[in-house]
Amino acid sequence: MAETSLLERLVEGLRCLPGVGPKSAQRMALHVLERDREGALRLAAVLREAVERIGHCRVCRTLTEHEVCHLCADSSRDRQVMCVVEAPADVLAIEQATGFRGQYHVLLGQLSPLDGVGPEELGLDQLEARLGEGQVTELILAMGTTVEGEVTAHYISEMARSRGIRTTRIAHGIPLGGELEYVDRGTLSHAFDGRREY
Amino acid sequence: MAETSLLERLVEGLRCLPGVGPKSAQRMALHVLERDREGALRLAAVLREAVERIGHCRVCRTLTEHEVCHLCADSSRDRQVMCVVEAPADVLAIEQATGFRGQYHVLLGQLSPLDGVGPEELGLDQLEARLGEGQVTELILAMGTTVEGEVTAHYISEMARSRGIRTTRIAHGIPLGGELEYVDRGTLSHAFDGRREY
Repeated sequence: MAETSLLERLVEGLRCLPGVGPKSAQRMALHVLERDREGALRLAAVLREAVERIGHCRVCRTLTEHEVCHLCADSSRDRQVMCVVEAPADVLAIEQATGFRGQYHVLLGQLSPLDGVGPEELGLDQLEARLGEGQVTELILAMGTTVEGEVTAHYISEMARSRGIRTTRIAHGIPLGGELEYVDRGTLSHAFDGRREY
Repeated sequence: MAETSLLERLVEGLRCLPGVGPKSAQRMALHVLERDREGALRLAAVLREAVERIGHCRVCRTLTEHEVCHLCADSSRDRQVMCVVEAPADVLAIEQATGFRGQYHVLLGQLSPLDGVGPEELGLDQLEARLGEGQVTELILAMGTTVEGEVTAHYISEMARSRGIRTTRIAHGIPLGGELEYVDRGTLSHAFDGRREY
């Protein structure tokens, strides 16, 4: 039968999720239809609600359903330290793994003029305004080490330097428990350059 | 903040999908919100529609949004051969891999009296009625080789035998390209017992 069945459309719809190929999409579709129809209805409702209500924080640009995210709204957090990251996922990772209690700024990308991503798209005017308020004394750069990441880090560090704000960058090196012989050359060379007094 | 955010609820909602743990659910949620909101809305709509409209085929019990599935409705398919499987996924796998052009009967489970799954729950009265119509001359059993699968196969083969219908069972053995030394003992022993004239 040439007509697309509803089951096929469900399988196709599930493929918008990252890492879900045709086989897993089919398994997911059959699973919810045979065993968890209530869960599927709940998922449909929360997907719609999330897309409709979740936007970006007016202050730090992370994802939130509020005008200002709960981290920016939290008056107990340190206003003197700010961490710049590329994506909302980075904010979640830092919150889950570290004791960092300062502010965030989320770029939602990396400087890449060829792809039309300039300072404006990364909200750098907004970041400049936040730094201009004079509360921040240390800016922690936590973007990646790709060429675009380096360019972005350089651009932002210049912005901070012109205001006399101390800029630091999180350490790149051998992961804890990592074996030297299995680490890529770039990381190993970086770890050597970044060695510290013992 | 103690209140559950909408993002956290979305992550939780995605965990109803099989094989999706907290990390992948978070990655999926951030991905659709940052990069594919349209896909997420389409998925929400098709999930809801599928749960509301997909039921079981009145004839063979597989999943379909119609009263009779497109396989049962297809008049070009052979009405003399019928294949009994455990789940709708088995129907899809057989359709995709083999040239089988007969009918199906989907048990939606295995006989397991201790769990309250008797002949009625597996639609065996329905299967009996279909066999009673007199068109089927071969019944192919394609259920698993668990104890419950064996019991189910035995029960159904008795039902067919009493009507003089030939019963066959799909071959279990070494998968194509499989190495003898890596195959489990049960499969290897089964393959020996099931050897055929060369």
